Amino acid sequence: MVHADASNFASGITKEEAYQQVLDQAEGLFYEQRNWVCNLSNAAALLWHAYKSLPYPSNQVNWAGFYTLDPKSLPEKPSLILGPFQGKVACQTISFSRGVCGAAAATGQTQLVHDVESFPGHIACDSESKSELVVPIIVEGKGAATATTAAGNGVVGIIDVDCAVLNGFDEVDKLYLEKLAELIGKSSDWP
Amino acid sequence: MVHADASNFASGITKEEAYQQVLDQAEGLFYEQRNWVCNLSNAAALLWHAYKSLPYPSNQVNWAGFYTLDPKSLPEKPSLILGPFQGKVACQTISFSRGVCGAAAATGQTQLVHDVESFPGHIACDSESKSELVVPIIVEGKGAATATTAAGNGVVGIIDVDCAVLNGFDEVDKLYLEKLAELIGKSSDWP
Repeated sequence: MVHADASNFASGITKEEAYQQVLDQAEGLFYEQRNWVCNLSNAAALLWHAYKSLPYPSNQVNWAGFYTLDPKSLPEKPSLILGPFQGKVACQTISFSRGVCGAAAATGQTQLVHDVESFPGHIACDSESKSELVVPIIVEGKGAATATTAAGNGVVGIIDVDCAVLNGFDEVDKLYLEKLAELIGKSSDWP
Repeated sequence: MVHADASNFASGITKEEAYQQVLDQAEGLFYEQRNWVCNLSNAAALLWHAYKSLPYPSNQVNWAGFYTLDPKSLPEKPSLILGPFQGKVACQTISFSRGVCGAAAATGQTQLVHDVESFPGHIACDSESKSELVVPIIVEGKGAATATTAAGNGVVGIIDVDCAVLNGFDEVDKLYLEKLAELIGKSSDWP
């Protein structure tokens, strides 16, 4: 099988089925490959093409990708730096204290935001984005500790998906992106 | 300006104008930001949206992104590993001896391929790709030395663009991607 076929999703499948294909394909692609840049790059491609195959509002997703812990930021003042993604150009760095991505990284908890304008301190990288889902990637013995992560665990990055319409994401998206975050976290070597 | 606007290209501009915008925006985005993952991620987004704004055949580009020198490969047997890109899921690693990407990395010279089927050892990551342009990113004191790179210089990665039609790229694409490779090479810190 050529690799590109992994991002071909059948029409008419449910959101659950699309996400399950993302998880299954990601697991295959990550097999014996622990390079985090490589794995995040392919994971962004899987997510993007899954959304584009789904009905409204999922097909309105306009950004899907990753930020990781900026190795240049200080432990007492951590920040995120842009990682592989699909969509338009994005903000390079995000402080843990800022916006939806920062909140997910700082708390270690998923942020499901139905209307980004209502989120305090929202960063408008793209004015077209109306709703957002951000899931922390938590790894044992790595990353930035948070109040909610278990002792020794830390946030190495986040999955970030934006949608061009309000209420683009729901609990199903949250559930599956959390599974993907867990898979990515344990399948890659983190700096 | 929100960052996403950097990837909005006016309709009706020439290929030269689109590439010049890519270069200008990339230079701005790389200012005081030398993280290579961040910079390659945004550069892939700029390229992708530039192609999509242009007439045929450029709008048929189906993959735009990067491979970098795999830090796990041996100096005597170097290979490339997938970096940030836009498009469908791609091959994770490519030996310097294989395909169009490998040839660019091994020789340190741009590979402009009008018909990938005619290229010996072409790797079909995506059977839809018909033509390809690969430009090496060469940096002083880094990467893998080649027969053509000046003493002390090496290949740290490649820019790879694929097109779903034959003859998707020409000398204009080659000229501007070589400028982009030079900008990226000097603007980022390489592992």
